[in-house]
Amino acid sequence: MQYDFVNAPDRTHTDSVKWDVKPGELPMWIADMDFKTAPEITAAMKEKIALGAFGYEFPKDDYFNAVADWYETEHNHRPKNEWMIFTTGVVPAISSIVRRISHIGDNVLVQEPVYNIFYNSILNNGRHVLSGDLQFDGEKYAVDWQDLEQKLAEPLTTLMIFCNPHNPVGKVWTAEEVQRIADLCHKHHVTLLSDEIHGDLVRKGPDYTPAFSVEVPAKQSVISLVSPSKTFNVAALHAATAIVPDENLREMVSRGLNSDEVAEPNLLAIPATIAAYEQGHDWLKGLKAQLNDNFDYAAEFIQAKIPTAKVISGTATYLMWIDVHEITDNSEKLVNFIREETGLIVSAGSIYRGDGHDFIRINLACPLEMVKDGMDRLATGISKYSKWLYM
Amino acid sequence: MQYDFVNAPDRTHTDSVKWDVKPGELPMWIADMDFKTAPEITAAMKEKIALGAFGYEFPKDDYFNAVADWYETEHNHRPKNEWMIFTTGVVPAISSIVRRISHIGDNVLVQEPVYNIFYNSILNNGRHVLSGDLQFDGEKYAVDWQDLEQKLAEPLTTLMIFCNPHNPVGKVWTAEEVQRIADLCHKHHVTLLSDEIHGDLVRKGPDYTPAFSVEVPAKQSVISLVSPSKTFNVAALHAATAIVPDENLREMVSRGLNSDEVAEPNLLAIPATIAAYEQGHDWLKGLKAQLNDNFDYAAEFIQAKIPTAKVISGTATYLMWIDVHEITDNSEKLVNFIREETGLIVSAGSIYRGDGHDFIRINLACPLEMVKDGMDRLATGISKYSKWLYM
Repeated sequence: MQYDFVNAPDRTHTDSVKWDVKPGELPMWIADMDFKTAPEITAAMKEKIALGAFGYEFPKDDYFNAVADWYETEHNHRPKNEWMIFTTGVVPAISSIVRRISHIGDNVLVQEPVYNIFYNSILNNGRHVLSGDLQFDGEKYAVDWQDLEQKLAEPLTTLMIFCNPHNPVGKVWTAEEVQRIADLCHKHHVTLLSDEIHGDLVRKGPDYTPAFSVEVPAKQSVISLVSPSKTFNVAALHAATAIVPDENLREMVSRGLNSDEVAEPNLLAIPATIAAYEQGHDWLKGLKAQLNDNFDYAAEFIQAKIPTAKVISGTATYLMWIDVHEITDNSEKLVNFIREETGLIVSAGSIYRGDGHDFIRINLACPLEMVKDGMDRLATGISKYSKWLYM
Repeated sequence: MQYDFVNAPDRTHTDSVKWDVKPGELPMWIADMDFKTAPEITAAMKEKIALGAFGYEFPKDDYFNAVADWYETEHNHRPKNEWMIFTTGVVPAISSIVRRISHIGDNVLVQEPVYNIFYNSILNNGRHVLSGDLQFDGEKYAVDWQDLEQKLAEPLTTLMIFCNPHNPVGKVWTAEEVQRIADLCHKHHVTLLSDEIHGDLVRKGPDYTPAFSVEVPAKQSVISLVSPSKTFNVAALHAATAIVPDENLREMVSRGLNSDEVAEPNLLAIPATIAAYEQGHDWLKGLKAQLNDNFDYAAEFIQAKIPTAKVISGTATYLMWIDVHEITDNSEKLVNFIREETGLIVSAGSIYRGDGHDFIRINLACPLEMVKDGMDRLATGISKYSKWLYM
């Protein structure tokens, strides 16, 4: 089947957070896509709606089989059905697990700069953020292993939230890195909570490594959170799966998800997820090809037209991480200026903390024409900002 | 439009909790309906699915206007838009509010026998259940006001969960009763959390009174939770609204719902709720007529064929509350026997605590033919049980 990655559905005047914008503005910030989801998924949704009666539901083996098949086919690791728990989303599960697995006042370890909502899940629940900052050498990001181990070894560090692959820097962790992090967590009695929502979006090169696939004994301490949400542009489907190999840890997570009421599927969650995982392989292939075209275009454009900016992104996610330290060390000020002057909305890297004040994040999951428009606005905005600075 | 209350959609071999039964069994327990929802709602769902892109959403004024219009038209009280907060469900909101408004070890007051899931929300969060039992005089249920006030006055009683109208006994509280309970709560610094999920299902007689409509100063201490869930058979829509007139209390509730990640709408929640509340009036009228027919049939049948049982239900809900104390004081044993012998599945009153061990609850929200089948099975089951007891 030929899929459409050329036309963006019009989401102005809908309930879309992304498209709640002024006329003429171009939102390239929040991480959902301006493509329609796979038609196989909407077909399954329509079929479910035809049933007409929408009482209480629970996921059965066909759901868990679909998740397992997808991970075996796409990622070469098959989770056991009994390891899995349905949940309404990765973020709801993170918040619930923070509450269930750590205690008030504990440290939750993250690797800054990282997905900003992690901070909400940690701080709103009265835990402390402890960062093992990723180290940037001007080209790429790496772990300071000594610093990481030292922080994991602190007795009050009980949970690590791992962004795998990493948002916003786009890094795909190697199998060795994932194992090493899991081993360190296990050694220091820290549960490793791995957010794998971008796992299906490795655009090229070596695949990501699900945390549930690590070797024992570290395997006893890991939780993988997976979802079709980013992959298929269905954030508002509210469907995800927690994969927890260890029975004891799994029961604790399950108890938390249930008490927090984020473990029951809505009427579309099960059939749409099954359709995505059983029939979505080709659509995803098409999506990745389009994303690679978009990344190539944007990278070449920036190199040619915005020499003060530098693309740092790795091979995962549809989010481009751009070093703007030659332009500003206050990326929030820069993105506000760009929006004001050009209508382009991108994310200030500063919200991800760490060295994010030197970066912006731009969402390239949209038709190429929109990427081109965005790049033109970005060039205009940065050019005006630089002139304005020296006025 | 003519609506269909004759044909039950076949939910065997789906993800339905209710219809996860052995061949030949007839489930009349869990509170969802065996009618298709209003066609106006499924039309709105289909329209949303055609959009195709399902990123992050938030509810806008059209949503809150629809809720307010519905309450003004159907219940003669209009909540202000700014009083409302979207939430994924009444039970998720109850659990979240228990956590946010009371403290571990506090008493949460309920009126037994009452909806069993209240106990989960209280106990799973480390609070105590304190019951001001409803008083049964053999005909109907009433409040022991002195007992209620005494229990509300205990310093550790910080929250009351009020079932308005009351499940399982079907009681519609009068406006005076609702005001009196709200006044007592306010006087004794207790927040009144009013579960109004059955509010639209007053089948005849005086309407229910939303807690948000009480007079000041009690109005400062109330939270109404409303939803199209029961009304339109859309439990798996995951859509509800918290209505909190007091700004300070509302901000606390909002903070809790957001931290617990039960405040974001899925892709159908907003359009389906708007369709229900804007276009569902006639369908609801038709539903109530069918439910009244079902209740009349069942009441006459039981009076004629099961003289040892007595129908106690009030005028609200599609759940019939039946006094079986002449047959048993262990309704759990009775319902297990009935299922074993006849395949009919009803709820043991004992799960609602209080005097529930003398009662069964039966869900009559299904085509009349199914009610007839259920009544025949009930008569057979009870007859066999009585004989078996004296064998």
